Amino acid sequence: MELGFVGLGRMGFNMVRRLTQGGHRVVAWNRSADKVAEAAQHGATPSASIPELVKALATPRVVWLMLPAGQATDDMIEQLVPLLEKGDLIVDGGNTNFHDDQRRAKRLAEVGMHYADVGTSGGIWGLANGYCMMTGGEAASMARLTPALDTLAPPDGWLHCGPVGAGHFAKMIHNGIEYGMMQAYAEGFEILKASEFDFDLAKLSHLWNQGSVVRSWLLELAVLAFQKDPKLERIRGYVEDSGEGRWTVLEAIDKNVPAEVLTLSLMRRFRSRQEDTFTDRVLAALRAEFGGHAVKAK
Amino acid sequence: MELGFVGLGRMGFNMVRRLTQGGHRVVAWNRSADKVAEAAQHGATPSASIPELVKALATPRVVWLMLPAGQATDDMIEQLVPLLEKGDLIVDGGNTNFHDDQRRAKRLAEVGMHYADVGTSGGIWGLANGYCMMTGGEAASMARLTPALDTLAPPDGWLHCGPVGAGHFAKMIHNGIEYGMMQAYAEGFEILKASEFDFDLAKLSHLWNQGSVVRSWLLELAVLAFQKDPKLERIRGYVEDSGEGRWTVLEAIDKNVPAEVLTLSLMRRFRSRQEDTFTDRVLAALRAEFGGHAVKAK
Repeated sequence: MELGFVGLGRMGFNMVRRLTQGGHRVVAWNRSADKVAEAAQHGATPSASIPELVKALATPRVVWLMLPAGQATDDMIEQLVPLLEKGDLIVDGGNTNFHDDQRRAKRLAEVGMHYADVGTSGGIWGLANGYCMMTGGEAASMARLTPALDTLAPPDGWLHCGPVGAGHFAKMIHNGIEYGMMQAYAEGFEILKASEFDFDLAKLSHLWNQGSVVRSWLLELAVLAFQKDPKLERIRGYVEDSGEGRWTVLEAIDKNVPAEVLTLSLMRRFRSRQEDTFTDRVLAALRAEFGGHAVKAK
Repeated sequence: MELGFVGLGRMGFNMVRRLTQGGHRVVAWNRSADKVAEAAQHGATPSASIPELVKALATPRVVWLMLPAGQATDDMIEQLVPLLEKGDLIVDGGNTNFHDDQRRAKRLAEVGMHYADVGTSGGIWGLANGYCMMTGGEAASMARLTPALDTLAPPDGWLHCGPVGAGHFAKMIHNGIEYGMMQAYAEGFEILKASEFDFDLAKLSHLWNQGSVVRSWLLELAVLAFQKDPKLERIRGYVEDSGEGRWTVLEAIDKNVPAEVLTLSLMRRFRSRQEDTFTDRVLAALRAEFGGHAVKAK
């Protein structure tokens, strides 16, 4: 099929490569032109601007956005709308909040355009393995996107999850679960490391991937990490989050679901970014007040 | 190789089948004789009593115990010791606490006997897939057990983790991690179910196993569960624990490791067994006291 592709970051660039390898005509644009030139070397049709990208596509068009979620994606949609025509389809493959999807689909419907959301998992491994894709939108949009989705995903690797927003909702929960799983492994490894035994964590992780109940792809990545740096001495315990974990917790609160472990896993990431917490200073101060317990000075 | 096998429960029976299929001579005993007869049909040598089992083995003997952890295993060891000889090896393949392993190895060393611990994962799927085995003990004991371990485990599926206790310690942490992973998935699925979208959880779980970051064997089991009962309407939310999760938390406390998610996952299991908690009654009572908030009567 033919599609426009906006955003050639770490994910987008590899997705374009997979699409061109799959025989699709991809008209690509990126904020920095060097990535466009690189994509052209991989078979994409370069475009120097968004109007040029739109002009290079036959109607009804499909424009796939792979941009930072939020304002950047909203701005691009507003830039596209006057250039596109009725019947055109905008696909957001970024890490968007499903509420934004619903708002945008409504706004585009008013001008006769379509919107679909695609939650994409697979990270830097997607180019080789394929991307696991959760899609939301009208059935007709899905039918139009099927050739591209079949190329991007591994076999059986994309699912129409429901109406607009359902794809990113599923991806959001996927990431929330990911936080919890990672935290569970991480705590287990810390207890192993603190033990009286001198466990080889690379070997043990590898072992657990051979038929144990906790085998998983994340545990395969743990093997790689421990092989490189057995005690992780070259890595600081500072952990970012990319938004979906927060939204998962907000959604749990909205629906009164006691998602305790997913919430705590997010909080542990916040904690990882603090050197010395005000909470702990309060605790130390109160212990000193009521019990005369010694406090450590700053 | 030749070994005695004591305990033909769900795990032990299938392990004996795998061992006899692998060409080993297994002398089997079980508390209930029907299981012994059944094992004999699968090629095991039946024994009517522990003395008979011991007599049927050439020295130096290997006796593998697959019994409920704790008293039942301790009692069996005490029954075996007067019948065994110096150089014989007792293997505990049950879900034993590593402190018990260390105590028993010391006690057996005093009478010139050896002890090895084997943490076994794989559940009811082990017969077909092989058991993932974490072993602890002397190198010489491991050398003696290698033929049996090679048969029981899938390729690369057993690891000598360290001295006596290290095998069960690794298995304990494995189970602690398992609790956390399961809780993470479970909370994610509850938020999906509570959402405005009508997700097909079997299809979504299956999708996530195709290249997503959260793919795992537990998620493959989730597919099976949701295929059987899409909203789990035939299952009550009551969750037992088998000990290792508790020991993981106790070990974390002993070593001052903040294993928050593993601890919370255990606590959520306790909570699952309560219909109406005293904690919540206290909260309701206090809200009524300070704010005049209505309480629900029993």
